[in-house]
Amino acid sequence: MPAGYQEVTPDLIEALRAAVPGRVSVGGEVNEDFSHDEMPIYGKAMPPVVVEAKTTEEVAAVMRLCNEARVPVVPRGAGTGLVGGAVATHGGVMLSTARMNRILGYDPENMVVRVQAGVLLNDLAEDAAKQGFLYPPDPGEKFATLGGNAATNAGGMRAVKYGTTRDYVRAMTVVLPTGEVLQLGASVSKSSSGYSLLNLMIGSEGTLGVITELTLKLIPAPKEVISLVVLYEDLEACIGSVPKLMRSGLQPQALEFMEREIVRLSESYLGKSTFPQVFEGTEVNAYLLVTFDGESEDALTDLIEQASEVVLEAGALDVLVADTPQLKKDAWAARSTFLEAISANTKLLDESDVVVPVNEIANYLGYIKQIAGGYDFEVKSFGHAGDGNLHIYNCSNTMEQAEFERQVADFMRKAYAKATELGGQISGEHGIGHGKRQYLASMAGPEVMRLMAGIKRVFDPNGILNPGKVCGE
Amino acid sequence: MPAGYQEVTPDLIEALRAAVPGRVSVGGEVNEDFSHDEMPIYGKAMPPVVVEAKTTEEVAAVMRLCNEARVPVVPRGAGTGLVGGAVATHGGVMLSTARMNRILGYDPENMVVRVQAGVLLNDLAEDAAKQGFLYPPDPGEKFATLGGNAATNAGGMRAVKYGTTRDYVRAMTVVLPTGEVLQLGASVSKSSSGYSLLNLMIGSEGTLGVITELTLKLIPAPKEVISLVVLYEDLEACIGSVPKLMRSGLQPQALEFMEREIVRLSESYLGKSTFPQVFEGTEVNAYLLVTFDGESEDALTDLIEQASEVVLEAGALDVLVADTPQLKKDAWAARSTFLEAISANTKLLDESDVVVPVNEIANYLGYIKQIAGGYDFEVKSFGHAGDGNLHIYNCSNTMEQAEFERQVADFMRKAYAKATELGGQISGEHGIGHGKRQYLASMAGPEVMRLMAGIKRVFDPNGILNPGKVCGE
Repeated sequence: MPAGYQEVTPDLIEALRAAVPGRVSVGGEVNEDFSHDEMPIYGKAMPPVVVEAKTTEEVAAVMRLCNEARVPVVPRGAGTGLVGGAVATHGGVMLSTARMNRILGYDPENMVVRVQAGVLLNDLAEDAAKQGFLYPPDPGEKFATLGGNAATNAGGMRAVKYGTTRDYVRAMTVVLPTGEVLQLGASVSKSSSGYSLLNLMIGSEGTLGVITELTLKLIPAPKEVISLVVLYEDLEACIGSVPKLMRSGLQPQALEFMEREIVRLSESYLGKSTFPQVFEGTEVNAYLLVTFDGESEDALTDLIEQASEVVLEAGALDVLVADTPQLKKDAWAARSTFLEAISANTKLLDESDVVVPVNEIANYLGYIKQIAGGYDFEVKSFGHAGDGNLHIYNCSNTMEQAEFERQVADFMRKAYAKATELGGQISGEHGIGHGKRQYLASMAGPEVMRLMAGIKRVFDPNGILNPGKVCGE
Repeated sequence: MPAGYQEVTPDLIEALRAAVPGRVSVGGEVNEDFSHDEMPIYGKAMPPVVVEAKTTEEVAAVMRLCNEARVPVVPRGAGTGLVGGAVATHGGVMLSTARMNRILGYDPENMVVRVQAGVLLNDLAEDAAKQGFLYPPDPGEKFATLGGNAATNAGGMRAVKYGTTRDYVRAMTVVLPTGEVLQLGASVSKSSSGYSLLNLMIGSEGTLGVITELTLKLIPAPKEVISLVVLYEDLEACIGSVPKLMRSGLQPQALEFMEREIVRLSESYLGKSTFPQVFEGTEVNAYLLVTFDGESEDALTDLIEQASEVVLEAGALDVLVADTPQLKKDAWAARSTFLEAISANTKLLDESDVVVPVNEIANYLGYIKQIAGGYDFEVKSFGHAGDGNLHIYNCSNTMEQAEFERQVADFMRKAYAKATELGGQISGEHGIGHGKRQYLASMAGPEVMRLMAGIKRVFDPNGILNPGKVCGE
């Protein structure tokens, strides 16, 4: 392992100010927002210095200076992560890409767009739509940066049809910890030209290099989109219909399951009720929210008819078609507001985003409910039914923080062990960061962790880039 | 770098025979087929020992023994590669996975299949079809192993709609050079759980580990498939219509371009003429072969009408619908026979499979034709129009081999430099192996090569696994 890290010196600050004039904050000038991400339970830390770069050259200069000085650097996009990945746990310099927010240009013939890493997902989505394109990845958090999305291989609602961020990153400009600038990948869709450093960089959470530009694949925007709300008496029937829908070849764009309680919470937060609670005298306890896209209204009508047949045969109570823009908006608003609604109502919050095989979702949630009774916090869950990616929240308004953390650690150990046993993975889309390292190490085993640490040393011999994250000490 | 490799000793042979009883060939027992792949111009080498493993445990035992003895190991599937990747250039032990040919089981609810690495693509394709599934990757060579497909990230005809092998490998069992057995990935479709060693292994051409089992994603088999042959007066019009077709959202499953000369060669090899040579008095000089799939005949009829409109507006002479099984078979037979037809007619053959942006294909082929005149060999090309992956053949029946190799090296240097200049990559699907190392190094640059070599050392500290390939000396 590298020798100890050094503190930021006045000389280094002076050199950083010369390299990035007017965009270096030090000590008391640093905004408190930079001390945490959206899951502050993993610990806050004020970075001694924040640099807000605007170009690849500035990022390279910062990395060169900090590498020479052996000072840790933590890259940060919009700070919307949920695993403490962009928190300066080891002090040093926080390198913000938030001002690298230019869409550099579309190449309509090759259907790609080039962006700076700090462009927000929402900004690209809106801009691409104006050009007749869809950027398919659609994580719940629309105000994350695209650089952050690539660094965590963000997934989201549409992954069931369109895949995750990995599937849309064709090329990137990345600055190594030494300050070297690399171009990885190309705008082409196929490559077998040596080890895929591009795919290694995707999901490496800012520990191997700082992504400064991305070339992203776009697709022609589907002409029509429609959503269904499917009602079930219980979760088993709801989840049981998912593999049947997937086998049908109807290719839903999104396929989310929700239980009664979390829908009520979200609706009460929004002050608007959209999801029926009773159907013909039967209590509705679970919902599927399904979206289809297609090239014409006729094609979609056809898809909806076939999908309704599949889910009704699989035990659904009823199918509601959200065929007006308002209905669709309301249905998705309830789903999109879950985290916000939970956060607003909760003092102490922790979360996991395990992924299990689709046909094990009900089994896994049964296990979670069974163990949840043994703890003083509440457990709330929802998730992506089409790909088995579950968001499980631990919430308390009454516990002491130390006791909450102790109990959550015990809960998570069990929850991750069960996910691993069922053939799942620690994280579907949020990553490992600082908060999930020990669980990754348990799941992956010492040999995989040794390989990851070895790769880290190849890219970052002095260990200065985002230390303590993913496979770091 | 590791110390020098050791020769195979009688002790090692004895230990290998104990580990893999009855399936170790030595010296004169070794079949000549093991001395080369399908592009012998890169040099033949008889391996001193061939081991035909049947299980992961046997592979692990072989690796442990050879690692301890510092003897090189070359993993080999069906030997259908085109870049000398599975040739024992450094002597040692050839480890064949050809007998690891069992389909281990389908998981229809999660739509995955588990196979041993030596299962042939064609065998899985046929078997999956019986289960109502499609395994989308469709490289021209149907008798390659799936392990080899993963090791080279093989692409093929359907990549334009469905992506390459990388997009279908959910998990693998891999044996490290030290004999350690790792499980990478899971049957789930989403993961953000540390560096993607799975994606690093895909496309690493047997230099980082030996793939012994794969969990592959399947999709529901499309109900209907239909092909079109589109006629053009010249290549420019042909290639020019491709981005328009891609933008249309009609999602062809395959999109191949062919020039007059190579179609005639193939038809004369097959003894059957399928592609019209003249349309209403105009000579046909270029063709697009387009395939669509869909859920119903009506949906396909609709797609074909729209596609015909797009290509006719873009300058096509005519569109022929291959709407009978025989017509479709004949059209694709001509395309699939290119390599065979060229090989049958050629004494000295070399090849490249560069990939360039889709809108640069015509420009690039113009350049190739322009420089081709300066050499004594013939140049023939065809390729995947939907993804810019071009197969360019150098053929001679009259040149001396040394002079052929000298001229080809000069041609390739120029051809790869031009591809790189246009934003392309060295290889779209064949890989780097032994034959393309110098071109990869020129394109990627010293820093990327340093990272690849560093990664290689992390996985293979003694450098015994497939030495001299990709980034090896």
